[in-house]
Amino acid sequence: VDQRTGLPVVAMVGGGQLARMTHQAAIPLGQALRVLATDPGEPAALVAPDVVIGDHRDLDALRRVAAGAEALTFDHEHVPEELLRALVADGVTVHPGPDALRHAQDKLVMRRRLAALGEPVPPFVEVPGDGEGALEVLADFAAEHGWPVVLKAVRGGYDGRGVWVLDDADAARATVPDLVAAGVPLMVEQRVVLRRELAAVLARSPFGQAALYPVVETVQVGGICTEVLAPAPGLDEEAADAAGALALRIAGALGVVGLLAVELFETPEGRLLVNELAMRPHNSAHWTQDGATTSQFEQHLRAVLDYPLGSTAATAPACVMANVLGGDPVPGIGMDERLHHTLARFPEARVHLYGKGERPGRKIGHVNVTGARVADVRARARLAADHLSTGVWSDGWSSH
Amino acid sequence: VDQRTGLPVVAMVGGGQLARMTHQAAIPLGQALRVLATDPGEPAALVAPDVVIGDHRDLDALRRVAAGAEALTFDHEHVPEELLRALVADGVTVHPGPDALRHAQDKLVMRRRLAALGEPVPPFVEVPGDGEGALEVLADFAAEHGWPVVLKAVRGGYDGRGVWVLDDADAARATVPDLVAAGVPLMVEQRVVLRRELAAVLARSPFGQAALYPVVETVQVGGICTEVLAPAPGLDEEAADAAGALALRIAGALGVVGLLAVELFETPEGRLLVNELAMRPHNSAHWTQDGATTSQFEQHLRAVLDYPLGSTAATAPACVMANVLGGDPVPGIGMDERLHHTLARFPEARVHLYGKGERPGRKIGHVNVTGARVADVRARARLAADHLSTGVWSDGWSSH
Repeated sequence: VDQRTGLPVVAMVGGGQLARMTHQAAIPLGQALRVLATDPGEPAALVAPDVVIGDHRDLDALRRVAAGAEALTFDHEHVPEELLRALVADGVTVHPGPDALRHAQDKLVMRRRLAALGEPVPPFVEVPGDGEGALEVLADFAAEHGWPVVLKAVRGGYDGRGVWVLDDADAARATVPDLVAAGVPLMVEQRVVLRRELAAVLARSPFGQAALYPVVETVQVGGICTEVLAPAPGLDEEAADAAGALALRIAGALGVVGLLAVELFETPEGRLLVNELAMRPHNSAHWTQDGATTSQFEQHLRAVLDYPLGSTAATAPACVMANVLGGDPVPGIGMDERLHHTLARFPEARVHLYGKGERPGRKIGHVNVTGARVADVRARARLAADHLSTGVWSDGWSSH
Repeated sequence: VDQRTGLPVVAMVGGGQLARMTHQAAIPLGQALRVLATDPGEPAALVAPDVVIGDHRDLDALRRVAAGAEALTFDHEHVPEELLRALVADGVTVHPGPDALRHAQDKLVMRRRLAALGEPVPPFVEVPGDGEGALEVLADFAAEHGWPVVLKAVRGGYDGRGVWVLDDADAARATVPDLVAAGVPLMVEQRVVLRRELAAVLARSPFGQAALYPVVETVQVGGICTEVLAPAPGLDEEAADAAGALALRIAGALGVVGLLAVELFETPEGRLLVNELAMRPHNSAHWTQDGATTSQFEQHLRAVLDYPLGSTAATAPACVMANVLGGDPVPGIGMDERLHHTLARFPEARVHLYGKGERPGRKIGHVNVTGARVADVRARARLAADHLSTGVWSDGWSSH
């Protein structure tokens, strides 16, 4: 408890944009988030007053950020499980706890658990950690399921990193031995032919209350989420209910506390397969900041503090989130100038910047637009986000 | 400019809830507000990383918070005009500037200016600073306009402080000499018979762009705003347009930059009279956080930075803000427990807490509720806010 206010303290491991936006959401709840950041220039450390500088793999740093907090939670999945168990042994309230979080940390653990639960996942198999054995397993797997196959690092991948699509045995020979030699634990799964990707996001509290957001479509380019369409256009009620029920079953079975994002493949036949799990605020629910009654960031705080959860109702018929990726902006046109022009053209656009440097492909912000028709809303969100990236209107529009 | 992000720095004088919520709104714009607070326990200082501790009447403190900022703006009106002029002479960009802000600092300056502009204000007169003369002026004024009259401190009042309704000459004799002896500069004005109070809130940028929010009804109890109904129920379009046009004329004539709240009396005949001006985010527009596309806090930042202004469109047919006043809570039921129960009953309520101690009558938070029908929305906002104040459901509801 914060002695100055009598209100709870939440500690978050990681100082990225998710922690930044969680701090923003903590303010109306009467709180200030305590953040463990590795550098004072990280997105959350730029805006929050209570920052512990330290490494998420350092138990002392974790203990410092957890001291006196009602709950410890996460901006990312990278805290080693044994350190989480040490914190739990200390008496720290860790949400999600290590028994749940390992399913978001380790793709093989997750796949095996979901398969055991009878939940739909693509066919997969572990790739052994020796070069010849690995290639043999891949060849056997491809013989059964066909090329291409998807090779994944079991841990640590994000935004398309740690995922390799292997078209054939030659590609496997060119890729796998180096990874195996580097000690990267690997798995392989079927390349699912898909119509599109969906996400079902919910929050679950220790009490067991769960609240599901409308199911969304996520658009990926090169493994990076570029747009989220809320609700998923044209998804019939039965399919949306099925996706939601699947996410609720997983949250309950794994004992998730906080946000759970279930990334789904929708096949051309309308089947749903679980792709990934995330147990934290997630890019697929950034739209909730401006398109739902309760944002995912407030909801995550409410869940980890065991507050009653907020309404997940959409506030408009359509909301589209477009990510702003670090790009190759027109020389001399800084973000401030790009922001001016973006706000001038789209006074209804909700811009969220993270305070990050503009490295190519890096998520440095996003734009939410709400409205009546998804196509129109999507076009505006895309134009705004691209302009923030590049300083160029991708439709050729000029104000001059 | 913040060298870490390339984005502008805004300094705000005052560390109260308005600065707290402005910091919250600065985060998505890629910024962190720099705050001048008198105490590290003030609402904004609890949540913002860049806090200068100092007094707003201390030029050195003002210079420290302004150093390197793109714009200096305000959480309150209490910075002495001569210090603002010294900052302007230093080259600081002060928004609103002292020539505008004096109309929010000094009720007599404001009344005289608006009267000179031909804008509707209640009849008023300055009360001289000597005991006998003051009573004589009051008696003459009452002879012309009738008792009761409203005595106002020319400077420094808020939330009903600095306003005295005098029923008759005896009340004047009991009140005025002490104030005069204490050196309080005074004015008197007609007690307007009113149907209700309204507020027209807009933002204006240095470029001259102005953006008006829907006109609202404000409900006052004992001089303290308790509820705001957006839009003002039953206000016909012509009257709303007139109120908005009045606010836009005032903003332009006074050269306001940033938010301007024009508090209005609506008479039983439908006439509008200007009551007060505020040139900062204002209680009458807290509803915009959850009921409008762009919140007043973001809009104020956009205005003082000369960004294009955001859409002021309402996002729902009705939004009601109810203030949470420090009260007399049920012993042993802390804010955290009251918050739990409030969120449980009203998952759609948007709660905003300021991190302030619970002194009776003090504004310690507010609740926004949006929906289709104002009466229903108002009832829920009121119940939620009262429960946060007291731990009691004012409709007798019990969850047990």
